[in-house]
Amino acid sequence: MSLLVVGSVAFDSVKTPFGEVEEALGGSATYFSLASGFFNDVQMVAVVGDDFPEEEIAFLNTRNVDTGGLQRVPGKTFRWKGAYTYELNEAQTLDTQLNVFEHFSPQIPDAYRDARFVFLGNIDPELQLLVLRQVREPQFVGLDTMNFWIERKKEALLAVLKHVDVLTINDGEARQLTGEVNLVKAARQILSQGPKILIIKRGEYGVLMFNGTRIFTAPAYPLEVVFDPTGAGDSFAGGMMGYLSNVQTINDETLRRAIVFGSVMASFNVEDFSMNRLRKLTYGEIEQRFKMFKALTDFEDI
Amino acid sequence: MSLLVVGSVAFDSVKTPFGEVEEALGGSATYFSLASGFFNDVQMVAVVGDDFPEEEIAFLNTRNVDTGGLQRVPGKTFRWKGAYTYELNEAQTLDTQLNVFEHFSPQIPDAYRDARFVFLGNIDPELQLLVLRQVREPQFVGLDTMNFWIERKKEALLAVLKHVDVLTINDGEARQLTGEVNLVKAARQILSQGPKILIIKRGEYGVLMFNGTRIFTAPAYPLEVVFDPTGAGDSFAGGMMGYLSNVQTINDETLRRAIVFGSVMASFNVEDFSMNRLRKLTYGEIEQRFKMFKALTDFEDI
Repeated sequence: MSLLVVGSVAFDSVKTPFGEVEEALGGSATYFSLASGFFNDVQMVAVVGDDFPEEEIAFLNTRNVDTGGLQRVPGKTFRWKGAYTYELNEAQTLDTQLNVFEHFSPQIPDAYRDARFVFLGNIDPELQLLVLRQVREPQFVGLDTMNFWIERKKEALLAVLKHVDVLTINDGEARQLTGEVNLVKAARQILSQGPKILIIKRGEYGVLMFNGTRIFTAPAYPLEVVFDPTGAGDSFAGGMMGYLSNVQTINDETLRRAIVFGSVMASFNVEDFSMNRLRKLTYGEIEQRFKMFKALTDFEDI
Repeated sequence: MSLLVVGSVAFDSVKTPFGEVEEALGGSATYFSLASGFFNDVQMVAVVGDDFPEEEIAFLNTRNVDTGGLQRVPGKTFRWKGAYTYELNEAQTLDTQLNVFEHFSPQIPDAYRDARFVFLGNIDPELQLLVLRQVREPQFVGLDTMNFWIERKKEALLAVLKHVDVLTINDGEARQLTGEVNLVKAARQILSQGPKILIIKRGEYGVLMFNGTRIFTAPAYPLEVVFDPTGAGDSFAGGMMGYLSNVQTINDETLRRAIVFGSVMASFNVEDFSMNRLRKLTYGEIEQRFKMFKALTDFEDI
């Protein structure tokens, strides 16, 4: 079943206590596509400038990513520069050059409009709405957003949320969106505004899923080296949506597994800068780490 | 199999965004005993002043707590006053009156010296050592400590750790003890200094257990109302040690269940001020919440 993602493609310059990279491949659509490509074919809609290397497109194509919806326009590709402190939680943005991304208007190719699984990466909620208007009959829609849009475009965000099945945000954003400190109460409020499922990302503490009245928690994999958290959320979403669009069945059981697959992808992604770890990852390694998540959380019932 | 705990008994005055209590029953030995008493008989060694009410002792006795080792000396019982902000993570200490606790020297009654399970609550590590010297042949020793002792009595703490099977500390303390930010590396370092098992408590994010090279994670139960986090760590330890001393078998399987029982006890404890929730708790409710932890974390393997 087809999976469509709309988001950003960028070049990231990232500095962490462990080193730095200059203008490495980044962006929400890119991380999502590379992660979901392990589970299913994915159609990517995004924009790049004329400086974007052909070999990166060719690489994505080898990883089940259809780049037919990638708009290439005159100008420079989106650039982001950030730094992480030793705790590796939130990035400090040092520089943002939107470049061609500034006037991005997602055009969904006709061949993609029948997509049944759609993921709206972290872009302007007005553009997310624009995407949904172009998709004919999606079965399952996921959405990611951030504090910037909650602050500046809350109305548009609430409008698009009405059409969303699963929302993925972090704990700070859940509190910001609802004005509620307690996450269980915040979740109930968000679920009353459209999404059937809420996934709260808590970085090194893992994720919480609220699926109606059912709650599921998954830890983050305890790693000895977390190199670069950039893209962890998008890799998570890619693993989750990739798995769900592959099995084509949405219920509490498949959602739980999807969340573990998402957590697996995020755990690999943070092991190296940019997409370096995902580039050389194998499906065998993904299965192995899934089993490690099982060993990490399993206990005998009474 | 007998379980011995040594720690503090106190009167706590606590203020949270949800209300406040004045001079309510508290202390590490008290929380531990009340929680472990649901699983096994527990022998409590601590000190109180002549202001300590007989009816509290009688209440503890009805909950499988043997208070024969409770020293009653002239003077006032230990008082602690603290406040929590809306996030409910760390308490801000407003006042500490050690009173009779200042010169506490744990005397283990002869009848307790054959205890096989021993928990050294958060007191001066020199006193923790003194306790171990009085116990004949413990099978399994647990220890709790805090930033205050890591800072001021690190040498004594490292000395007592050599005789400890399980250490329970929070993430900040694990980092402080080792000078290592990464918890997996910090854990490995701690496990090389004595304890076979390390349990890292992360408040609302649950716990991490390092048992040799095996890792287990348990979430905190997502609650709509967290009233008062005071005593959560001691209730956790009480549930864990209570269960283990009851089953008398220490292996990865029983440790995982013990951690879930500990998490269950902590989750109840924070639902009300002081020991108000534990006072009226039933074993049926404990079993029910254990099953809720299973539902919270379970997913199908691949």
